[in-house]
Amino acid sequence: MNLLLVSQADFIATDRVRISDRRLQHLNSVHKASVGQTLRAGCLGGLQGQATLLAIDDTAAELHVDFQQPPPAKLPITLLLALPRPKMLRRTLQTIASMGVAKLVLINSYRVEKSFWQTPFLQPEALHEQLLLGLEQARDTVLPNIILAKRFKPFVEDELPAMAANTRGLIAHPGDFPECPRALSESVTLAIGPEGGWIPYEVELLSKAGLSPVQLGERILRVETAVPALLARLF
Amino acid sequence: MNLLLVSQADFIATDRVRISDRRLQHLNSVHKASVGQTLRAGCLGGLQGQATLLAIDDTAAELHVDFQQPPPAKLPITLLLALPRPKMLRRTLQTIASMGVAKLVLINSYRVEKSFWQTPFLQPEALHEQLLLGLEQARDTVLPNIILAKRFKPFVEDELPAMAANTRGLIAHPGDFPECPRALSESVTLAIGPEGGWIPYEVELLSKAGLSPVQLGERILRVETAVPALLARLF
Repeated sequence: MNLLLVSQADFIATDRVRISDRRLQHLNSVHKASVGQTLRAGCLGGLQGQATLLAIDDTAAELHVDFQQPPPAKLPITLLLALPRPKMLRRTLQTIASMGVAKLVLINSYRVEKSFWQTPFLQPEALHEQLLLGLEQARDTVLPNIILAKRFKPFVEDELPAMAANTRGLIAHPGDFPECPRALSESVTLAIGPEGGWIPYEVELLSKAGLSPVQLGERILRVETAVPALLARLF
Repeated sequence: MNLLLVSQADFIATDRVRISDRRLQHLNSVHKASVGQTLRAGCLGGLQGQATLLAIDDTAAELHVDFQQPPPAKLPITLLLALPRPKMLRRTLQTIASMGVAKLVLINSYRVEKSFWQTPFLQPEALHEQLLLGLEQARDTVLPNIILAKRFKPFVEDELPAMAANTRGLIAHPGDFPECPRALSESVTLAIGPEGGWIPYEVELLSKAGLSPVQLGERILRVETAVPALLARLF
């Protein structure tokens, strides 16, 4: 936890918060925080700065906060990600939040197992929790937008073209394609497939929506490795 | 398992192998492989190509192998990595093998907890197992070289200068430093610190050994995210 994230509900005065959950435990057990100590903190969806501990015990902590700095800039990217298996989903959500992805579409694909859509990790509170962990890691305060697209075809045909308009549209796809570009300054829409990759029909529909296949070399990476590798290369 | 990796010990004839461990389970349960089926396969430390299933049951599988292709090229990098916590170590080892790091030095640092060096995951067989998983993922056959440097100072003073000679020496370090370079063709020696980063004394010794600090932006990434991000950016 490199940033203590508070939300509007935690405020008990304009410059004072009270917390009593996982964050309190972390302050007590990991930070071993004591009164007077100053921590990096930020307000979810807003500014960040300092928090000074006014009181702490096993049930609650009160902190004075002074938030004046903007959060780090988001990466100008919409990431279309074939829904990963639940265990990988959690870590990938953290990575996506910590690297600053602006918008994430978790989408179905022929090679996504149907059961993956049943995972409790897709519940709004569970998604929220993993994204918060990513923000705390990277000292960001702004959640990425998340869209769940359980049906591939209607999303890619009806919604993606407008979403990808005026962006560089890319499909991460192994094969005889151009190299993934580097250090872009424009906005990007990037589609990353499931284990085993997109099927040709899916690549065809993504292409019609304005995305073009690019490759990252002959090594096949797991999604949790491919995501940071592609983001670091693109921006 | 995108590549069935066999080793010299598995050969029962010049073009035939018999396997009976985790790989057999995987063939039975995930691939649901049947006689006559052809798989991508490779020989640990050597060439890769095809394997054709001659016989399979619950106790063993026999395959005809035909290996003629070289493995993918390694990244020309020596990665000095402050020993991560055990859970993260396992995943990071897989990532390092799958992305093709040529040489890995797991090194101590002031902020590495002493207990991390006691983990069973540092035993040679355990390291080997995680690296194999990374090779299987990326369809590589060649293990990275692994060095354990339990003492920071003697390694950095006595061994690193020769190791880093004629390479681009870099320290991943947040702060007011030049941006991490991109798309290098030269060899690189890269030092990645622990959670909380290298301490100034460590940066000083690494600098004396020929490495210079570079930064990857203001977001603080977990080591398992920073490793693929830095590798994808550098090469």
